Amino acid sequence: MTKTAILGYGTVGSGVAEVLCGHADSIARKADGPIALKYICDVRDFPDSPYQDLFTKDFSVIERDPEVGIVVETIGGIGVALDFTRRCLRAGKSVVTSNKELVAMHGYELTHLAAENGVCYLFEASVGGGIPIIRPLTQCLAANDLLEITGILNGTTNYILTRMARAGAPFAEALKEAQANGYAERDPSADVEGHDACRKICILASIAFGRHIYPDQVPTEGISHITPTDMDYAEQSGRKIKLLGRAVLMPDGTVSACVGPHLVDLENPLAGVEDVFNGITVRGDAIGDVMFYGRGAGKLPTASAVVADVIDLARNREHRKPLLWEKGGPDAVSAQPMATRWYVRAQTRPEELRTALGGGQLLARRGNENGETACITAGALTPEELRQRLGALQPLSVLRVLD
Amino acid sequence: MTKTAILGYGTVGSGVAEVLCGHADSIARKADGPIALKYICDVRDFPDSPYQDLFTKDFSVIERDPEVGIVVETIGGIGVALDFTRRCLRAGKSVVTSNKELVAMHGYELTHLAAENGVCYLFEASVGGGIPIIRPLTQCLAANDLLEITGILNGTTNYILTRMARAGAPFAEALKEAQANGYAERDPSADVEGHDACRKICILASIAFGRHIYPDQVPTEGISHITPTDMDYAEQSGRKIKLLGRAVLMPDGTVSACVGPHLVDLENPLAGVEDVFNGITVRGDAIGDVMFYGRGAGKLPTASAVVADVIDLARNREHRKPLLWEKGGPDAVSAQPMATRWYVRAQTRPEELRTALGGGQLLARRGNENGETACITAGALTPEELRQRLGALQPLSVLRVLD
Repeated sequence: MTKTAILGYGTVGSGVAEVLCGHADSIARKADGPIALKYICDVRDFPDSPYQDLFTKDFSVIERDPEVGIVVETIGGIGVALDFTRRCLRAGKSVVTSNKELVAMHGYELTHLAAENGVCYLFEASVGGGIPIIRPLTQCLAANDLLEITGILNGTTNYILTRMARAGAPFAEALKEAQANGYAERDPSADVEGHDACRKICILASIAFGRHIYPDQVPTEGISHITPTDMDYAEQSGRKIKLLGRAVLMPDGTVSACVGPHLVDLENPLAGVEDVFNGITVRGDAIGDVMFYGRGAGKLPTASAVVADVIDLARNREHRKPLLWEKGGPDAVSAQPMATRWYVRAQTRPEELRTALGGGQLLARRGNENGETACITAGALTPEELRQRLGALQPLSVLRVLD
Repeated sequence: MTKTAILGYGTVGSGVAEVLCGHADSIARKADGPIALKYICDVRDFPDSPYQDLFTKDFSVIERDPEVGIVVETIGGIGVALDFTRRCLRAGKSVVTSNKELVAMHGYELTHLAAENGVCYLFEASVGGGIPIIRPLTQCLAANDLLEITGILNGTTNYILTRMARAGAPFAEALKEAQANGYAERDPSADVEGHDACRKICILASIAFGRHIYPDQVPTEGISHITPTDMDYAEQSGRKIKLLGRAVLMPDGTVSACVGPHLVDLENPLAGVEDVFNGITVRGDAIGDVMFYGRGAGKLPTASAVVADVIDLARNREHRKPLLWEKGGPDAVSAQPMATRWYVRAQTRPEELRTALGGGQLLARRGNENGETACITAGALTPEELRQRLGALQPLSVLRVLD
């Protein structure tokens, strides 16, 4: 009998309780024995919860209970979550989490702390909600040298961009619609400024390339400056605008990563990932490109990924090998920001823009009467190289292009 | 030190040797120790192979060598492959294979034979080439009750259908093109008649729903009768024609499965799976739909999936839990063939067809001057129910619709 506790009874935490209890029989079959939920720890009261008897406000009860072998951390954020996770691991309990912020900031420390204590720190649910991605990366693609990961990692922004493209709505209006539908939070900045996608690409890059990559090492840009005009140009050039997180292994062994809106060709399967869905493309030297697609968030999808980790731990109790990577540092990432082609829109004559950029493909747009021009650069440039070419020219919009 | 042998040095077998030897260092890291290739068994001579010293024509040398813990079977087919696999498992060696025919026909027997002998029979490469699907199904989605699997499981037919749709080519011409490009075999019947897709959906259904489903229990139809006219109707109704393998868990616990061409709405992510790519959608009660996408065949993608299984075995040598399902039988599948909506094309007046079908959506087609009509039925029907409605009417084409 495996006994578990849930820390934090919010959306995901309550979903974990629901999945664990609602699927108890089939989970017992897959885990080679029943998994019982013994405690739920939250400072709040939940008088209507069906799990009344399990609640405690005192974390140390769980910490000191030797029967609890697996703890689910769904508190979120750093502070308390970090403290409780460290204490669980030191107490010899494995921890499963959906907390991408904590993994992106402290994953190196916590996975090693787990290994030192003979337990595991697992976080399949921290990226892509219920989409299997961490385990496929580490196990199924193990025969590949991984070269690149590119993904639509945030459902909120993908919903907003999909609405902008389909309805021609400006950003603010699409954001309001997302909030009204429960797809965006009241303070949407972590999503729309790209921070959420940044944490996720950091986690994926750390696993894929073997050294910890920290969020402040990844240039990150959001989508709030995207206009319907940009959407128009993208559409009429056979592309969509998607917020991508990218991490590429460079020839010198460093990782080049960035988060920002990209123009994506319709032929690329990521262009077909719409609404709140996520899609993550992994490139390996043997397999080529593989894409994983599904709902990247939501109570039950995310909870099901947490519970899959719990089942894995229960089933392989004694023998689960830890998932580890090396320490990060300034030399883990490339000195130069990523070079890509760029989409540039400016209030200027077509030939002037094309000449400034040193050539490129001018984009057409129906009904353009404002004397604006948009152009895609001929070759890949770093942001600094692009700035130098533009010189005194003040662009209205600058977006990366995914090739 | 783990020692392995490869049985059958064809396309996949030689790819496995290449990946094992070419990635030896990173594989050793992931497997917690080196994996050495000790033998390659093939009746043919390969004087130009770089692995001259490893070849043997005598399988019993491998069978009797206690140093060999993992055997890769890439012979294909049933006969010799079945005999050698049984003998390896009885000799206490785990077996890894890409042989979908053998798994679809004898997977129940061989996984249980492996478990009896304390070893494993793994076959990630048998479905979807290098796309991770077996392990995600069994591990990552373990917290879900699986409800349905629908996939584009055969790259050859998907290439042919993509060429027919894009170039307006008839089937025979697109097949020739596929053969010229090395995407179809000289005898293409296993692919174009749907047998390959059928084996794969049987493997996926057995794992997902827990009882062995045999190929002769799955009504299977190929794509050779699809015409450019059907392609036209599909396109103009916002759909594509895709060869799908489907397996659905019915309320009574039986499995309803079929293989055949389907009209797929462009909004469905499977519609975007083009050329030789495969895409497999899995529906779970918690996660909703998840799709796995990538190259479903090819030497290195398939070999990399085989080697991932080998790494898994080497790493978890003593503790790899077996993957098992229950015995099949007539009561494992539904008594009634699957009910879906249907596309029906006939040489008749629109209202006549619509009336015969008991209502439905008439499809338009540019340049239709032949007095033909195409209609999609209003509701789901079994094949027998459709036949009864059509009565004396002889349709030119009948295809399922994916909803």
